[in-house]
Amino acid sequence: MSTEPVFSDEPTRLADTIVRIFGDQVGEFAPVRWPEGGAVDLIAGADAQDDCAVFRLSGDHDLVVGSDYVRGPKFRLYEMGHLDEYDLGYYLVAANVSDIAAMGATPIGVLSVVRYPPDMTDDLFERVMQGIHDACSRFGCLNVGGDIGGAERLILSATALGVCPGGGSLLRSGAKPGDVVCLTSPTGLAGAAMAYLRADKPDDVIDEQHLATMLANWKRPHARVHEGRALRASGVVTSCQDTSDGLKATLESIASASGVGITVQERDLPIPEGVAAVAEHLDLDPLGVVMGDSVDFELVFTVARAEVEGLAERLDFHRIGVVRQDAGVVLARGDGTVTPLPGKAWRHVSDDPGGRRA
Amino acid sequence: MSTEPVFSDEPTRLADTIVRIFGDQVGEFAPVRWPEGGAVDLIAGADAQDDCAVFRLSGDHDLVVGSDYVRGPKFRLYEMGHLDEYDLGYYLVAANVSDIAAMGATPIGVLSVVRYPPDMTDDLFERVMQGIHDACSRFGCLNVGGDIGGAERLILSATALGVCPGGGSLLRSGAKPGDVVCLTSPTGLAGAAMAYLRADKPDDVIDEQHLATMLANWKRPHARVHEGRALRASGVVTSCQDTSDGLKATLESIASASGVGITVQERDLPIPEGVAAVAEHLDLDPLGVVMGDSVDFELVFTVARAEVEGLAERLDFHRIGVVRQDAGVVLARGDGTVTPLPGKAWRHVSDDPGGRRA
Repeated sequence: MSTEPVFSDEPTRLADTIVRIFGDQVGEFAPVRWPEGGAVDLIAGADAQDDCAVFRLSGDHDLVVGSDYVRGPKFRLYEMGHLDEYDLGYYLVAANVSDIAAMGATPIGVLSVVRYPPDMTDDLFERVMQGIHDACSRFGCLNVGGDIGGAERLILSATALGVCPGGGSLLRSGAKPGDVVCLTSPTGLAGAAMAYLRADKPDDVIDEQHLATMLANWKRPHARVHEGRALRASGVVTSCQDTSDGLKATLESIASASGVGITVQERDLPIPEGVAAVAEHLDLDPLGVVMGDSVDFELVFTVARAEVEGLAERLDFHRIGVVRQDAGVVLARGDGTVTPLPGKAWRHVSDDPGGRRA
Repeated sequence: MSTEPVFSDEPTRLADTIVRIFGDQVGEFAPVRWPEGGAVDLIAGADAQDDCAVFRLSGDHDLVVGSDYVRGPKFRLYEMGHLDEYDLGYYLVAANVSDIAAMGATPIGVLSVVRYPPDMTDDLFERVMQGIHDACSRFGCLNVGGDIGGAERLILSATALGVCPGGGSLLRSGAKPGDVVCLTSPTGLAGAAMAYLRADKPDDVIDEQHLATMLANWKRPHARVHEGRALRASGVVTSCQDTSDGLKATLESIASASGVGITVQERDLPIPEGVAAVAEHLDLDPLGVVMGDSVDFELVFTVARAEVEGLAERLDFHRIGVVRQDAGVVLARGDGTVTPLPGKAWRHVSDDPGGRRA
């Protein structure tokens, strides 16, 4: 490898890095075949470098599509040196694929927008693209297109596409009174990692294992694709959303979209060891960390009470509450009191220089 | 209207501006019905604010999807005051829909990423979103989702989705020797406007009408959706690409993807009056402006010679050259000589601070 840093132009990076990392996509694409009869094939991917990527969809499909921007240098843990360029590329894909998972869909492709500053070498640019590629592989899809080029700083944004059999997508709006509220895995680790690393007190040393587990939520976030598909296939899930805006915001969003209320049971809410450890060190309410603006990619979903046992035989999850007819999302505490949910509401203020309010 | 500037947070802008501008999308969506039997309906759009937008696709479709980032403050004419926030939103959509048009597809939706600086008021943010909305309406689709929030400067990126009957999408790779090379409308006006306005010489005053025409290419760019659909429906077009990287780059891309060469006839290349006027003022080669890195959204396409007359009865276009078997894209000059194409190659250097080369 050259020791001299290389700064190629956009056509060169397209012709070299992009084609090398994302080559022969039609051959690589795992064709979708539903038992119901639908099929999805890739006709032209990133390597075709046409105006657009092309999929062929035959039969009845729900096509789901969402876009998420990821802060570049605003991405605090990257600025602080805890994440590298590969991690950012990986994260970009996980964040976008998580929205596909939350619809119960199978991801088929990602389009990534990667704009880089003048001082980003070809090697670092390639690390971003490799992270994007590897995360796509991890989640069973391909980076089929996007846009690269210069900018005055690193800018990362993406769009993910998914499909499921027609009528199968899981919306937020179907929760019914009496449904059980469930969570795929505990939340709060991403928020705890951020709180711990930003506190930056030299005497605040928590267990290395906890720190590694927490950082993994940022370095290799796990979009719940398998779980989302299983929830969709079960046919008994009435609503679903990912927790990328925090557990509290997710519960409030499902309740609002469904026109219902939710009571969360404090005793049923899982608190990861790492969250408990950080909360103790920093004198935080662990429930606030679990509920607050931690960017985890778990799924919250609702199931009719009669169906929840059957679903639990096929999938691991936590039952954290119940859907009520009357509005409001509240916490039933262990001491018998009922309170508002703890945790910061979703405002993205911590990373958002646009957080001024009128 | 309040005279005090208002800076709402992200949830407020979602609940107010986004829902107001993009409300009731399922009712607004124009369902797609192909004579061949395919159908596309919108199930959940931007107003649903679910994890993803959802389309239902029944029958056989080619789904085409592409992403384009638009420079914010790097967007020179905006920095210079010639474009406002509404214009940027409009441009963002046109640039993205142009890629759908170039595939011969019908646009069904756009996802827009709009991240704004702390000093962008609700009113200016709304202007961006209104431009996005109006451009979508102009091109027959909806802004079905995306991502908004803060950033340290204005960042605009989008993804456009389109469909056509299965097997109908127009790729770059089908041009055959003997095909006629065609262009929907003249290129160069966007580049001429940029060159003129950046030259900024007070004594360089060209005709107001020319300036308005040229600026319209930036303020209300026209994605060739109608033309793209007509080319697809004709069944005789062998390749197609938009000219957003410049006419020269487009011709070279089609030639390369198709494994052919192209000879452009100088006498057949249309030169708009505005381009001629600016070229004279600034002592530029008008052919260089027409061929170079002007960001126009015209379509270049190829048609078998036997079919071109029939197509011309249904659609207006310019025949500018011919496809050859041997490689190379050249210009046959009026004086009988054959030269390389004039005009800067595609490097995005003029707007690209990342333009350092090894």
